[in-house]
Formats: sequence, C-alpha cells, structure tokens
Amino acid sequence: MTLLEAVLALRRGEVSSAELTAAALAAIERLNPATNAMQLITADAARAEARAADEARARGEGGGALQGIPGAFKDLFYTKGVRTTGGSQLFASHVPDHDATVVARVRAAGGVLIGKTGMHELAYGITSSNPHFGAVRNPWDRDRIPGGSSGGSGAAVAAGMVFMAMGSDTGGSIRIPASFCGVVGLKPTYGRVSRYGAMPLGFSLDHIGPLTRSVRDAGAVLNVIAGHDPLDDSSSRRPIENYVPDPEPSIRGLRIGLAENFYFERLDPEVDVAVRAALRTAESHGAEIVLLRVPDIAAINTVARTILLGEASAALEPYLDQRDQIGADVLALLDQGRLIPATDYINAQRLRRVMQREFAALWKRVDCLITPTTPATAPRIGETTTTIAGENEDVRLAATRMVRGINLLGLPAVSIPCGSDRRGLPIGLQIIGQPFAEAQILRVAQVLLPAEVPVPQL
Amino acid sequence: MTLLEAVLALRRGEVSSAELTAAALAAIERLNPATNAMQLITADAARAEARAADEARARGEGGGALQGIPGAFKDLFYTKGVRTTGGSQLFASHVPDHDATVVARVRAAGGVLIGKTGMHELAYGITSSNPHFGAVRNPWDRDRIPGGSSGGSGAAVAAGMVFMAMGSDTGGSIRIPASFCGVVGLKPTYGRVSRYGAMPLGFSLDHIGPLTRSVRDAGAVLNVIAGHDPLDDSSSRRPIENYVPDPEPSIRGLRIGLAENFYFERLDPEVDVAVRAALRTAESHGAEIVLLRVPDIAAINTVARTILLGEASAALEPYLDQRDQIGADVLALLDQGRLIPATDYINAQRLRRVMQREFAALWKRVDCLITPTTPATAPRIGETTTTIAGENEDVRLAATRMVRGINLLGLPAVSIPCGSDRRGLPIGLQIIGQPFAEAQILRVAQVLLPAEVPVPQL
Repeated sequence: MTLLEAVLALRRGEVSSAELTAAALAAIERLNPATNAMQLITADAARAEARAADEARARGEGGGALQGIPGAFKDLFYTKGVRTTGGSQLFASHVPDHDATVVARVRAAGGVLIGKTGMHELAYGITSSNPHFGAVRNPWDRDRIPGGSSGGSGAAVAAGMVFMAMGSDTGGSIRIPASFCGVVGLKPTYGRVSRYGAMPLGFSLDHIGPLTRSVRDAGAVLNVIAGHDPLDDSSSRRPIENYVPDPEPSIRGLRIGLAENFYFERLDPEVDVAVRAALRTAESHGAEIVLLRVPDIAAINTVARTILLGEASAALEPYLDQRDQIGADVLALLDQGRLIPATDYINAQRLRRVMQREFAALWKRVDCLITPTTPATAPRIGETTTTIAGENEDVRLAATRMVRGINLLGLPAVSIPCGSDRRGLPIGLQIIGQPFAEAQILRVAQVLLPAEVPVPQL
Repeated sequence: MTLLEAVLALRRGEVSSAELTAAALAAIERLNPATNAMQLITADAARAEARAADEARARGEGGGALQGIPGAFKDLFYTKGVRTTGGSQLFASHVPDHDATVVARVRAAGGVLIGKTGMHELAYGITSSNPHFGAVRNPWDRDRIPGGSSGGSGAAVAAGMVFMAMGSDTGGSIRIPASFCGVVGLKPTYGRVSRYGAMPLGFSLDHIGPLTRSVRDAGAVLNVIAGHDPLDDSSSRRPIENYVPDPEPSIRGLRIGLAENFYFERLDPEVDVAVRAALRTAESHGAEIVLLRVPDIAAINTVARTILLGEASAALEPYLDQRDQIGADVLALLDQGRLIPATDYINAQRLRRVMQREFAALWKRVDCLITPTTPATAPRIGETTTTIAGENEDVRLAATRMVRGINLLGLPAVSIPCGSDRRGLPIGLQIIGQPFAEAQILRVAQVLLPAEVPVPQL
C-alpha cells in the first residue's frame, strides 16, 4: 500500500491509524534487525498519536493531508522530546525541545512519528555505515550499502516499514539511497522546504525532501512541507504551486534533455540499458529527447566539494576538539575542510553563480534533464573503491558523480527506480528540473513510474 | 549651483550643456592641481557629448533626467573606451570595451562624462593617498585626506568641479569622503544599484552611490541608477520607489534612534556637539528622538572586516604575483586575507545573518538611526594614528568605525554635513534606514540640510 492509498483507506474508514501504526511497528520489529534502518522507534508515542488521530477523525476533525499516517524522519531532524543524534556520538544524548519545521508541518498535517532513521555519521558520507549505530543494510542485499547519508530512510521505505521517511540531501543524500534502495527520492529546489531544526552540514547546499514508494506520495509529502518559513533565512517567499497528481499525466511535447558529454560516460552497462529504455518509454508517451551538451559537470562537482568542505567544517568546528568521538572518514573530511582558504571558498561561490547562469541557459532548449542517479547499483558494505565499466573509482566520488552538482545549482531533482541489474539490485534514474518546477519533474516521474515500487522479500 | 538647479536652468534654456561643461572643465583646470581629485579628464569627449546633448534638446529630444549634466565617475567604473585603473598600477593601461551599468544609465539619462576621479588604490583603504597617482587632497585643507576610497569623488564635488561624482562603498568609502569633504554621500540598500562593470572589492559588501552638493541631487541620481540589472546577480528585483523631493519635507512623528551604547563613545567633542545640535533641529521639526541600545557594533565591524579580508583577497588573488605593483598598505591587507580560513569566513557570514535579524528588530521601535559619520574630522595626509577624545586610534579603524557595519547589514545610509570644527573642517552626520527606505532617509537629510553645502575657497 502506498501513502496515498493509506490516506484514502483511512478516509473511507477501511482502516484505522491505530491499525496502520501497529502494522508499521510490526514490520519494523520484523525487518529492522536485518536492515538497521530505524535508529530509534517511538512505539508508545506513535500508538498514542495514532489513537488521537483516529479519535479526531471520529469527531469529524483533523482532516490533515497526512492524518493518521505513520512516517519516519532521518535522525538529524529535531524532534521535540525525542533524541536526535545526527548519527553522531557527539549528540548521543541530545533531546531537542522543539520540532524541526518539517517535523512540525508533518505533525500539523496529522502525521504520526514512528521513529528516527539511521544515517551516515553527521550526514557526511554516502554509505550509512555508521561507526556508532552500526551499518544500515540494503533491503535488496544485506551485504550492500543502502547509500547515504539518508540510508535508513531509504531502507525503511524500501523494506515497507513506513510509507514515507524524510531525508536530507547535501550532495545526493536523498537520491543516492533512493537509487540504491529502489524507492522514490525527491530533492526540492533550494529554498522550497525549510531547514529550520535540521542539523546543518552545508548551509548553501542542504536540501530536505521525502523518500516514498510512489511518485504521487513524494508529491503529497512535498505539498505538506513546502513553503516559506521565517525561521530559515534561505527559505523562499515564492508562492507554492501545489503538486496535484494527474490520473493521466501527459508529457506530450515535453523536451527531455540528454547530456551526451557527461551523464553517459563511465556507466555500468546495465544502468545504461535501463535508463535508455526509460527514455524510449518517455518518447513513446510523446516526449522529445534532445541530445545536448551541458556545462562541465566535473567542474561543477569540484566547486560543490570545495564549498561543502568549508561549510561542513565551519558548522562542526565547535566539536573538533572531541576527535575521538568522530569516525575516521568524517574526521578526515572535517580536517581537510579546515585547510581550505577563505579565498578558495569565495571563488567557488563566485564560480557557482557563473555555473548557475550557464545551466539556466539550458532551459531555453529543454524542459528537464534525465540522467542515471548513480553510475552503478549499490556497492558492498566496506568497499571504498568500485569498478564501473572496467575502471576503478572511489565509491564516494562514483555515488555522488551525477547528483552532487545539482545541489550546487539548487535545482529540483527526483530519483525513481527504473529496473534492476542481473543481481536484482535497483537501478535509479534522475530527473532534474528548472527552479521550482517540482510539479513538472514529478509528472515525468509519474509517467515513467506509474505504480508503486516493488518491495524485496526479506 | 546644484545638479537639480542646473537641470532646471538647462530646461529653461538659461544655460547650455556646452556652457556647463566648459565651466566644469575650467573649474577642473583651476582646482585640480591643488586637489588631484580628477585622475583623468575626458575634455574633448565631454565637449562633444555636451554639444550633442544641446542639439538633442534643440530638436525637442533627449529629455533625460540628467540631460546635458556633466558628472564624474570613480576610476573603478568601467567606461567604454576610457581608461579605468581602479587606482592601481596593475590596470594602468586598461581600457574597457563597455560601460558599467551605472555609467550606461547616467549616459542614457543624458549625463555627460567629464572624467574619472582619483581613489584609494584598488578601493582598499580610506585615505586616497594613492602611491601611483598621487594623494588626493581635501579641498578644505590641502594637507588633509579627503577620505576614501572615493576620495576624488568627494573632493571633486566639494571643490565645485562637478555636480555629481559616482562613488563606491564597501566599508564606508562613499560616506567617509562625504564626511571629510563636507558633501552628501548616499550608500543605497544592498541590491538597489547594479554593480556590473564596477571593479569588485568585497562581493557581499560593495555598494554604489552618488556624492553631490545637495540631498535632492543625491536622490535625483539614485532615481537614474537604481533598479534591477540581470547582469548583476546581487541586484534586487524589488520594484523601485522613486525619490520625489518634497518642497516642504515633513518628519513630524518620525522616530529617530540614537544608540547610547555605541555611536557616541569616543567622539571628538566638536563632532558630538554638532550631531546633537542636528538632533535638536530634527526634534524642532516634530521628530521624536528615541534613545536605544543597538546590537554590538564593534562585533558587527569585526565580522565585516573578516568578510572583506577574504573577499578582497579572492577578487585580487590573480594579481598577487605582481607584488611590486601594489602599495604596501593594500598588499598587507591582501596578504592578511589569504590567511583567513574558509571556516572563519563562513562563520562570519552566518553571524552576519544573526546580526541582520537582531538589527531588523530595531525597526519596530525607530524609523531610522542617526550617528556621526566619522568620529572626527579629516586627519592629515600621512597620519596613521589619530587622537580622538584623548585616545590614540588607527586612522583606518577610526574612520570606518561608524560606517563599516552598515555595509555588513546592507542598509541604506546617507552622510550629510552638519557644521564644521574650529579649523573649518566639515563634520558629517549619518542617517541609517531600513532596507529600501532611501526615500525616508533622504527626507530626514533634506530637513537637516535644506540647501546646498558650502564650497571652500581654494
């Protein structure tokens, strides 16, 4: 069942929130030992919230868009009275006294908080092999990473524990786990969703968005969480255009860009085949595939890395005297970031504006871009290099290669599954849109993924 | 004669642009040897432009707001076909192939370019004692600095060479010369005036605005240069509210803030007396003086300095291998900026947002703030320290103390003369407004300075 199906079933009285929540808790109990997706389970509070949602409904109140729907949040979103660690030992006993804005908005829409999902330590990495809370495992192959940093959110949704888990994405951290776990992951436009109460990693790169099992579900959650928040300086005042799922979405005449100079270099051949098949599907629905060259994405990624190194070290500098509390991979990045001169950071921000302008010119020729989300399917836990199309590549660089630059540009992007490889591992496809064109990329995604994603047997 | 009086006289046919331009060129010829205010005089081009302006008027065309008015630009504004040095030996033979947006807008309004004004090297200092082009001298005392970095603009307007000279202000560079030279200097809100084609110093701190001999003149020039420019990423899309000079401006009921915790600390007693007299004038016009405490301006200045050190070194890094071409004071700052870590710069930008929010809360209690522009009148050329109220202080730190933080906050501010000290040197008063409230601070300025500023005998 998808989130929107559950919403309908609740409205029709076919199921209660108490039942949905009990089912979710049972699924977590059964599936979490194998995946370690949930880092903290708020079972009692969830049951109480579910009862309250049912009672409100019985009184004819509480018609929120997510009324009675259980969901989970990556453990970097502040949850009032519920421990929030950011996947770090530093915050192992940190209990916020307020909710992040996205948590508050989901609650205001009637959502039930069922727990906090595991993540890469401090959201600074793509494996979610957490040294403090254990490795999160991919539901499609427990020896493989779910991706990260929102790995627990990807795994929890993929395994069928929850309809929705909130993630954050600084260099691909929603889309990479969506790709590796075979779910839908939406990174909205920079400024569309408030970041207040989300532990920061990169101030100018952090984005927040949902992971779900259908495209419509992602749009439904976006409707709830999007919009201006005076508590977040980066929050846009631009009026929200709500996503309205179309029963018969049309992409006729839509120009889908395909970047010949970059996105199909050094791909796993199975990923290439799957994405090209999806492009043919789009063509069969009347879309036009436009071959084009995009600005140098490798340079865009380099600029994004420089900015992230500086911003992450600035955000986490107060904790760098507690070195023994931080994992080796994260510590190495934090130390590296302290060596970046201000001039390099500032020039990276200047280049970013040039790149944004260059990229903006593409929208005269195409309406969106399609790429693979990741050049290969999920690597094994513990692997630091991976072989893609016969070449060795650092796992982190490979996983972020096609997604990181989009954070620099601030563009909306959604990752959807498009088939699987010979091992049965999901393949991800990324649709990148113009600023604030979430509705458009979700329409394309819905055509390519009209139904719920498959769920693995665990 | 002020700029607006000249505009009227031209419209009435009482004078021609050719006559105004010839008079300006004669004044420059007479006064420039003593002041070194003009670094480059475009006499022939100016005469031709003036003739063209007169001919257009004769044909009934060319009703631009500055039609036929001669004016000068600080030598960091790109002028097509006219050498633009930024006061630096590095660009001694640099001839741009296009105009800066402010130059283009003044030309489009019919303005006549009469020359380029001297400045502190690379706009990075407050003396305008330029090692390559000579010291600019204060028209009120040729042994004293005019202030900077827009020192030539201040001196040229004060001496009566031109009605208007454009300046730029990164940490006080319009307001300090306005204060020391006894003219009006307007730094508009960040984003109101395009910076395209102005050599950058601090990307997030640079502002552009006019120096004139009356408040209305400053407003008239602002009307011409303000507005969105797609060529400048920092340019605001906010619609312009034109400044309309009121013949009987009223400030009745206006709440003028007076910061007891900072602005009146360590002032030259004569400056204190003059500013307090101006406050009494405002009260006599029905304004209410509100004593209040402002957020820690010393901290705001420190944050502004950190940001400027990083940004200036980032902008000028490509030239740092030509060390012998750069003056000692500027080189020391550029070297210092290269040692700022990205984390310090990023944290300074984070603190900036906190400070902007804190400052924004003041606007519930007051409509504007009044301060001295500089704590003392113009120091002597060559002085690096100055004694203010019995204490020794670095000349640069003293001059920027009350103005630099306003660049960090991005607020509009205008400096107007308010009397003179026992040596006959002008005293400056600063009016700081809410974002985009230029019209309001100009109204206050007009009440306090209803007429043209006095011009020294040279």
